Amino acid sequence: MHPFQYFQEIIKNKVDNLVFNDNPKELYDPIKYSLSAGGKRLRPVLTLMACDMFSGNIEQAINPAIAYEIFHNFTLIHDDIMDNSCVRRNKLTVHNKWNNNIAILSGDAMVFKAYDFFLELDPKLLKKTITLFNNTAIEVCEGQQYDMNFETKEDVSIEEYLEMIKLKTSVLIAACLKTGAIIANASDKDANLIYDFGINIGLAFQLQDDLLDVYGDFDVFGKKIGNDIVSNKKTFLLINAKKLAKDKMLDSLNYYLQLKNFSKFEKVAKVTEIYNKLDVKELAEIKIKLFFNKAIYSLNKINIEENKKTELLLFANNLVERSF
Amino acid sequence: MHPFQYFQEIIKNKVDNLVFNDNPKELYDPIKYSLSAGGKRLRPVLTLMACDMFSGNIEQAINPAIAYEIFHNFTLIHDDIMDNSCVRRNKLTVHNKWNNNIAILSGDAMVFKAYDFFLELDPKLLKKTITLFNNTAIEVCEGQQYDMNFETKEDVSIEEYLEMIKLKTSVLIAACLKTGAIIANASDKDANLIYDFGINIGLAFQLQDDLLDVYGDFDVFGKKIGNDIVSNKKTFLLINAKKLAKDKMLDSLNYYLQLKNFSKFEKVAKVTEIYNKLDVKELAEIKIKLFFNKAIYSLNKINIEENKKTELLLFANNLVERSF
Repeated sequence: MHPFQYFQEIIKNKVDNLVFNDNPKELYDPIKYSLSAGGKRLRPVLTLMACDMFSGNIEQAINPAIAYEIFHNFTLIHDDIMDNSCVRRNKLTVHNKWNNNIAILSGDAMVFKAYDFFLELDPKLLKKTITLFNNTAIEVCEGQQYDMNFETKEDVSIEEYLEMIKLKTSVLIAACLKTGAIIANASDKDANLIYDFGINIGLAFQLQDDLLDVYGDFDVFGKKIGNDIVSNKKTFLLINAKKLAKDKMLDSLNYYLQLKNFSKFEKVAKVTEIYNKLDVKELAEIKIKLFFNKAIYSLNKINIEENKKTELLLFANNLVERSF
Repeated sequence: MHPFQYFQEIIKNKVDNLVFNDNPKELYDPIKYSLSAGGKRLRPVLTLMACDMFSGNIEQAINPAIAYEIFHNFTLIHDDIMDNSCVRRNKLTVHNKWNNNIAILSGDAMVFKAYDFFLELDPKLLKKTITLFNNTAIEVCEGQQYDMNFETKEDVSIEEYLEMIKLKTSVLIAACLKTGAIIANASDKDANLIYDFGINIGLAFQLQDDLLDVYGDFDVFGKKIGNDIVSNKKTFLLINAKKLAKDKMLDSLNYYLQLKNFSKFEKVAKVTEIYNKLDVKELAEIKIKLFFNKAIYSLNKINIEENKKTELLLFANNLVERSF
């Protein structure tokens, strides 16, 4: 079994050598720009790791892995329009560097390109993998819609929030893993177990992201600290804080949430103080641990030699231990 | 062989009975709205007609036909955002009725739904049909990008314009036909001939649309007359007029093209007058006839009994004879 970095290098090389048409430039330049922006290549690497774990032929899994990477980058381009985000991975977002129309259309084109990367699969695998890809993509759209809805919805429950991040983040991670398993001809049972592993690791990963936004280290996290607080984003922390805060503390929280003109520094500091008093950090950590344990439980049940699971286990550990 | 209307009824019933999730409403309501807006269902009908012509099993072709109808409606939703169109088929466009974000995301979701409608095909047909669908969809994106580029490009040539409408309109019509042929197990040669038929009929169809915008009858055409002139759209007529006009007539044309505040009625009347003097209507009619003849030439070469071609021949005739 190979480690994460080994597969990351394979994906990096493959992405770097993708060939797209030159014209129309306005369509293809944003695609090349988006795919060259780097990132961890987490999703395609997971496809290869799962394929490797089930002793499959890695070569066969590379193209479908790339399909998921292209899809992921498509979602970033369209989400950035919808969220009006200006910067991603320290570079201008596509709609900001070009314009909304170009970002819509080049994103669309990426979707059709993504499907191309399944077509060399054995016809029987083709149906299975594309079915999973379609279902996953639809769920990701649903997740993004719920995420947008939550911006103006006052009473988002913890359950609704977890369902949203499952759709927006976890199903994609799970599908990447399951695709690797399918290509390696894993049993349906094992393919579903690795999917469940992915769902729970994805949930842990997203809650971790919520935590890092407040308690992370900028140099490691790579994003500004406190963004979610500044924008009143309904994260696991805020939803719990709103539920738990009483009397003066609730007034104070609501005061900072409704402020129109404010010092970002002060708002982040004060809301973090409230989070600390309410122990919502610990609540998140408990939940992360819970999802992590569920993930490991599924991994343990997979019917292959234990030593083949080492790399995914390591990956899961790194993911939830990253950068506090 | 069945006539156009027979297949139109099949498609209508199928579209009317499509089932989508209910939630999130903001994602699925626009999809239902878009698909229920009617239209001629031209593209999916062509898939069924081609399948029928090659004596294939119509039942097998219905779902892939629906995939193309969903795809077509997706392009309308995203194009309407990009073109800032407010009304389509006498109803508010999706981004106008809801908002841009909802139109982007529900359009995206339609693409993934479209692919679902290929999955029941025999695995061998799956690869062939999806390959064609991917290539076509990418070309349609390229066509839309060229169309947008032409809005600000001064010197669009006739060749560039024809290439753009081929990508934006014809390849989709051609692919719908070829998909029906593939499902009916037509030979590659015949499948390519029906594709060529579609390309040329598509070009004739689009040039006809350019003509109808100026010389059509509102009650039959269903769109306002003179829209292209009002918006300075670089149609076959305008590109030719700019090439042919000299001296005072060129000055007059350029005068109306650069006017910021104008009476729409006057601009349409004056530009039409210039078109008439330059005989660009006749130029378009000659070109339409040329593409029509090329289409019929391909249809004739298809290696099946002549009587099986009657319905497509009738369809082609109706298309280029519509509503002057």
